[in-house]
Amino acid sequence: MLYSKLFGKSTKNLPADADSVNAGLLTRAGFIQKQLSGVYNYLPLGLRVLTKIQQIIREEMNAIGGQEIFMPVLSSEDSWIATKRHQMPVLFHLLGQDDIRYVLNPTHEEVVTPLAQKYLFSYRDLPLAVYQIQTKFRNEPRAKSGLLRGREFSMKDLYSFHATESDLDHYYDIVKNAYFKIFQRLGLGDITVLTFATGGEFSRYSHEFQTISDNGEDTIYLCSKCRVAVNKEIIAEQSTCPECGSADLQPVKAIEVGNIFKLRTKFSDAFNLRYLDESGQNQLVEMGCYGIGPSRIMGTLVEVFHDDKGIIWPKSVAPYQVHLIGLDLFDIETKNQADNLYQQLTDQKVEVLYDDRPDSTAGEKFADADLIGIPIRLVVSKRSLEKGGVEIKSRSSTETKIISPDDFRL
Amino acid sequence: MLYSKLFGKSTKNLPADADSVNAGLLTRAGFIQKQLSGVYNYLPLGLRVLTKIQQIIREEMNAIGGQEIFMPVLSSEDSWIATKRHQMPVLFHLLGQDDIRYVLNPTHEEVVTPLAQKYLFSYRDLPLAVYQIQTKFRNEPRAKSGLLRGREFSMKDLYSFHATESDLDHYYDIVKNAYFKIFQRLGLGDITVLTFATGGEFSRYSHEFQTISDNGEDTIYLCSKCRVAVNKEIIAEQSTCPECGSADLQPVKAIEVGNIFKLRTKFSDAFNLRYLDESGQNQLVEMGCYGIGPSRIMGTLVEVFHDDKGIIWPKSVAPYQVHLIGLDLFDIETKNQADNLYQQLTDQKVEVLYDDRPDSTAGEKFADADLIGIPIRLVVSKRSLEKGGVEIKSRSSTETKIISPDDFRL
Repeated sequence: MLYSKLFGKSTKNLPADADSVNAGLLTRAGFIQKQLSGVYNYLPLGLRVLTKIQQIIREEMNAIGGQEIFMPVLSSEDSWIATKRHQMPVLFHLLGQDDIRYVLNPTHEEVVTPLAQKYLFSYRDLPLAVYQIQTKFRNEPRAKSGLLRGREFSMKDLYSFHATESDLDHYYDIVKNAYFKIFQRLGLGDITVLTFATGGEFSRYSHEFQTISDNGEDTIYLCSKCRVAVNKEIIAEQSTCPECGSADLQPVKAIEVGNIFKLRTKFSDAFNLRYLDESGQNQLVEMGCYGIGPSRIMGTLVEVFHDDKGIIWPKSVAPYQVHLIGLDLFDIETKNQADNLYQQLTDQKVEVLYDDRPDSTAGEKFADADLIGIPIRLVVSKRSLEKGGVEIKSRSSTETKIISPDDFRL
Repeated sequence: MLYSKLFGKSTKNLPADADSVNAGLLTRAGFIQKQLSGVYNYLPLGLRVLTKIQQIIREEMNAIGGQEIFMPVLSSEDSWIATKRHQMPVLFHLLGQDDIRYVLNPTHEEVVTPLAQKYLFSYRDLPLAVYQIQTKFRNEPRAKSGLLRGREFSMKDLYSFHATESDLDHYYDIVKNAYFKIFQRLGLGDITVLTFATGGEFSRYSHEFQTISDNGEDTIYLCSKCRVAVNKEIIAEQSTCPECGSADLQPVKAIEVGNIFKLRTKFSDAFNLRYLDESGQNQLVEMGCYGIGPSRIMGTLVEVFHDDKGIIWPKSVAPYQVHLIGLDLFDIETKNQADNLYQQLTDQKVEVLYDDRPDSTAGEKFADADLIGIPIRLVVSKRSLEKGGVEIKSRSSTETKIISPDDFRL
């Protein structure tokens, strides 16, 4: 991509209403643009990152047998009355021309349970796991922290259906492991911890995945002995680690990036989702639900991977792998070399953002590269060519060296 | 994919409220499931088709320099007041906790124009083309015809921005050609015609892309001399073909699958979207908008490509390329051969749906294959193995033959 043509170039001005590091950097660098409080446009750079995060999640959901579906944004208020959740303050309500009362779904238990009912009849149809990557809506009293708490946001939600509690328990652990793998691939593995949370009516615990960050709005209590934490509600009930029994639980700030929950029969009961077991008995289906927020993860990545110059994307989700800067482009030979390198990398299917702007200074181009945060920076200039090639630098280091363009490998 | 595990198996019963061929077949075959009138769930088979349609459109938009972005579902009612469109009856309105009045966007001129304003300053920033593939909402008094007229549906919308009317005209023709290419790739090229429609305040004509279908809800008037048509509004004004002047215009039923429109300065004027031209003058930006509905196309494909047994998908958007049927699976040798072929094809990255159900009859499996409509059917049975291999049949023909599994090529 030519930076000169890119929609959503960087701006020096921090938006006046940016209330967080992620909103400030992502807006200044041209990844997102606020539409309304808690509602964002994704510009080309931002959509590339969001799509990569979603694709990593999709691959790991497919790997554990999740079948991808796509449920609607609109549901009938009646479904929410059936589960007694229609008065949840975060629901957006609206009225259609035909007097149907709709809800904008903040989660999809009210949709997926009746949907499963159309296809689940016998123990032979179980277990089943379906997921979607869909936009969700929350009528938040105060949207804040950029992509961390929005009114409209991207969510992956997986729902599993089981004949028995033990089969649910078994799959719950499979999902837990898939989540660890996802956070590992997103570069968040080392700072994301399994956190015990309350389990609701039917289960002792649920679990959150919390990424440790000074800018997090949650406080979790990290066990000094084992790699788990408990949230505020749990520490009010018990002062020891549920995993190892240690009493050394230290408060840290964190961002909730995922949660998994054994619904058990809460929703199958509400919608009478039953199956015939091997002995011909009608039984309620056991259910689990498992969420991850791709847009919130995008915000979290910026909160934890940045410096005073800008964002530092992990390779796995960076919008491009290489930020190629052409300097001295008034010089035809230099411009030809830079253009050729762009073409060569593009032919090799390397994702390159090429700053080909003729009128910007070297200082502006370097500052933009640091702000945007692509992992590898290449510079072609009169000086680099005199030295025999192209200057290479990693975003996360200050060291530069000159290599021959033919020696470049990702 | 194993059919025994697939979420959304076929059903023999036509849904009582299916009001169209596409709703009936897509529901019976397990592609979609109605949530509410005009609001559908996409099951795994259906989402695969929808995603393939979207991907073809995406590739052709990228090929003409379109930059993909993602704008929100929610906008502020104020933006619609600015363009005097806030009283359009198809708008869904809702109220947030903080008394913001929102609209669910049925189209995005009210979002993209102010968004472009943040990044367009000079003639150097033009031309620009941005697009998205997003869910749209229409508060239709009567949703009908399955995926053809929904309240919640998938839309690709491209917006272009130009310094001059002639540059807009030039790009408009580029998009027109891209649209023809898209419909060609979707298998609809031969029956989709460019149709002249009214152009609104600023242009003489806009254009629709209409797919000829007996079940279409539009009537267009097809020129017998050249490959264009005019819509009802145009024929009321003029009785000759705008392209060749012929007066032989014949009425046919058709489904509108796309439209392209020169907005000119209608929206740039409403939002004061201006640029500095080369002489330093402030000028209004010229705009075009270009829509295609992926979900409506999915419905259209079923309307035009089906027989009394089921759907006949074009290869380019079929959910899988091969429908492998295993018969006589009680016989271990036959089951091994069928399982091996499934594995072999999967290893070769062929998209296969494998009907491995042990308890279904041959008749049921053949009927399901015809209903689902995957282009190639392979059958492994005792009889096929005795004849030396696997039976192959195309969905669109009745001819079968036996081939060696090693000779199978897509």
